[in-house]
Amino acid sequence: MIINTHFGEIPQSYLFSEVAERVRRFEQQQPDARVLRLGIGDVTRPLAPAVIGALHAAVDEQATTEGFQGYGPEAGYEFLREAIAAGEYGSIGVDVAPDEIFIGDGSKSDSANIQELFSETARVAVTDPVYPVYVDSNAMAGRLGSFDGERWTGLTYLPCDDANGYRPPLPAEPVELIYLCSPGNPTGTTMSRADLEEWVQYARRTGAVILFDVAYRAFITGDDVPRSIYEIEGADEVAIELGSFSKTAGFTGLRCSWTVVPKNLTRDGASLNAMWLRRQSTKFNGTPYIVQRAAEAVYSADGREQVQADVDYYLQNARLIRATLEQAGVSAVGGEHSPYVWFRCPSGMDSWAFFDVLLEQAQIVGTPGVGFGPTGAGHFRLSAFNTAEATREAAERLAKLLPTLV
Amino acid sequence: MIINTHFGEIPQSYLFSEVAERVRRFEQQQPDARVLRLGIGDVTRPLAPAVIGALHAAVDEQATTEGFQGYGPEAGYEFLREAIAAGEYGSIGVDVAPDEIFIGDGSKSDSANIQELFSETARVAVTDPVYPVYVDSNAMAGRLGSFDGERWTGLTYLPCDDANGYRPPLPAEPVELIYLCSPGNPTGTTMSRADLEEWVQYARRTGAVILFDVAYRAFITGDDVPRSIYEIEGADEVAIELGSFSKTAGFTGLRCSWTVVPKNLTRDGASLNAMWLRRQSTKFNGTPYIVQRAAEAVYSADGREQVQADVDYYLQNARLIRATLEQAGVSAVGGEHSPYVWFRCPSGMDSWAFFDVLLEQAQIVGTPGVGFGPTGAGHFRLSAFNTAEATREAAERLAKLLPTLV
Repeated sequence: MIINTHFGEIPQSYLFSEVAERVRRFEQQQPDARVLRLGIGDVTRPLAPAVIGALHAAVDEQATTEGFQGYGPEAGYEFLREAIAAGEYGSIGVDVAPDEIFIGDGSKSDSANIQELFSETARVAVTDPVYPVYVDSNAMAGRLGSFDGERWTGLTYLPCDDANGYRPPLPAEPVELIYLCSPGNPTGTTMSRADLEEWVQYARRTGAVILFDVAYRAFITGDDVPRSIYEIEGADEVAIELGSFSKTAGFTGLRCSWTVVPKNLTRDGASLNAMWLRRQSTKFNGTPYIVQRAAEAVYSADGREQVQADVDYYLQNARLIRATLEQAGVSAVGGEHSPYVWFRCPSGMDSWAFFDVLLEQAQIVGTPGVGFGPTGAGHFRLSAFNTAEATREAAERLAKLLPTLV
Repeated sequence: MIINTHFGEIPQSYLFSEVAERVRRFEQQQPDARVLRLGIGDVTRPLAPAVIGALHAAVDEQATTEGFQGYGPEAGYEFLREAIAAGEYGSIGVDVAPDEIFIGDGSKSDSANIQELFSETARVAVTDPVYPVYVDSNAMAGRLGSFDGERWTGLTYLPCDDANGYRPPLPAEPVELIYLCSPGNPTGTTMSRADLEEWVQYARRTGAVILFDVAYRAFITGDDVPRSIYEIEGADEVAIELGSFSKTAGFTGLRCSWTVVPKNLTRDGASLNAMWLRRQSTKFNGTPYIVQRAAEAVYSADGREQVQADVDYYLQNARLIRATLEQAGVSAVGGEHSPYVWFRCPSGMDSWAFFDVLLEQAQIVGTPGVGFGPTGAGHFRLSAFNTAEATREAAERLAKLLPTLV
């Protein structure tokens, strides 16, 4: 065999293509229906003026011999590493040095690539439901055994649902890599300080490494929910953290992210910081200069205020969706520190049956929870990434529909 | 072991850091010396006006609700895939469909990631000397055995030097993946149509896959040198091609590239086009929209003319360097269809000894050939990526120095 046969093991993900196909068929049958899309995880508001200004200025630099920037440092420009160290960590009293921060082109790439640092036999644990990239990137590397139609034989699933209050349980078997995400995708739930302390203790005891995804941290309100795993003592010896500008500042089309690999994090005598630097230097040529200048602008006074206003806008949508569900007797999680609202489908419907009812009877598109893992079966995700007007109309339609189903 | 132990096998690359260190020391000792840098492989001319205009326009789109672009298609926007199909392939009479073209963020990433499609036991062949990313990305994946201080035990080297006219010989043992680059880095030499036909025949006979890197194709002048491996009949069943905007249009800091994976390329019953789409969809979120619009502008009438003028500018520098060497009796290759000039160091000096002589006696910085592989020992690379004025001054200094050495 010349090809990587692990690719053939991965089931085709029909989730979003199947969603698109069902919506297409519906719109063909009912061309006058006003379909409201609350399915996607992509932002809809334009880039903030401070970001736009920084982009134009950086583009102008690239037009001059003096200002031209060619290859940049693979780990990112110092100006952005420093801005993140101060703006994301210093600001919450956490000490992360600029050379522990690596600039990437998105948390999708970073979270897919980080597994390269680990042995092909390392045992992986993920929450269930989960962001599919953690699973598929490890499957491609041959770390998950085979897929039995519902589960990977070599993957440890940490089921999260209302039975355990969406708190991922510690693994029953020994594991070496643990993916955690807070606020979580798709459930929108958060891990408390006590939860994180338990996980850090577990990792310190067992030698496991935690990959902590904070892509949605800008949605956290108040001071009770940790914004970084490094708020927990000793986490710098057990955890890598992945952050993103995608949802914070609407960078889904602009592409910028960061990874924190603490210098105190070593395994088998090797520095994971040095390994990640080596990996990025060998296989990546840095995020575009103009994009790094745009990301830097997020930390300016104007930038902060503008991106916060967008986050608040989405959060207001999210709260309305959750309140509407709960008023109709459908208990839901998320939507407080997250753009996602997650709930069990009414009357024990399965994810796809509810998808069809919602589309046909209320012309609302959501995301079937089963697409995020076996424990997602019978659940559903609605997202706040739409206009306030569309969200209000969706809430009105939901308020009419749900009482007929519950 | 929890970590990927293959990382530990890779020798630290001291090449460019050692170059920088020696230059730093020299400049400290001789602060008045005017050091001319002909070492780097990075462009120096600013982005073309057509590219700058497209960037500003795309940034403005991102500032409006109607024009905002979030997540794009992972394989790239249709407008750019079509522009490349027409501008790079249709223009030379080669039929490549837009859905065989995948937009990336640089040939470094693409050429480092493409090996993921292949078995961990696939045998790899590279020319020697070679662009180090091909080697290191396979070393990280555990495909090359161990490093014996000079060579990888499990890698097939195809030596290229004046003895064989820089034509890579067919492998003596069976191999499954072959990296070829024309015009080549670091040697600047090109493969002829007959050379490529031989390789395509070899691959068709043995089932090997050729990874053909055309990052420097914009430097080809005239019609004798193939600009794409798909100019050779049957190559679409054996070859993947990697292209880049870095050197063509000065995108080293902007980051955009493409990969062609023909639909006719299958191995072990699998479509490599489908596998690469799966890989990119799972582990990459696309090149920034604004950068793809900038790349599209390279194919506008103004864009073509402007980037060609920059390439011509560098080519003129390259020709001057080569002519200067040859007038002094140092035979050299490259510099015709390439920004690089490659030669054996005068009087049998080794790469680093000549580096020191050149720096101390002519204040010129070049790149020691030994950094590109064992057959690069005793060789040297000079690059055309500097101003015409600096290149002329370097040529004058070389013309004085070389006769004292030859």
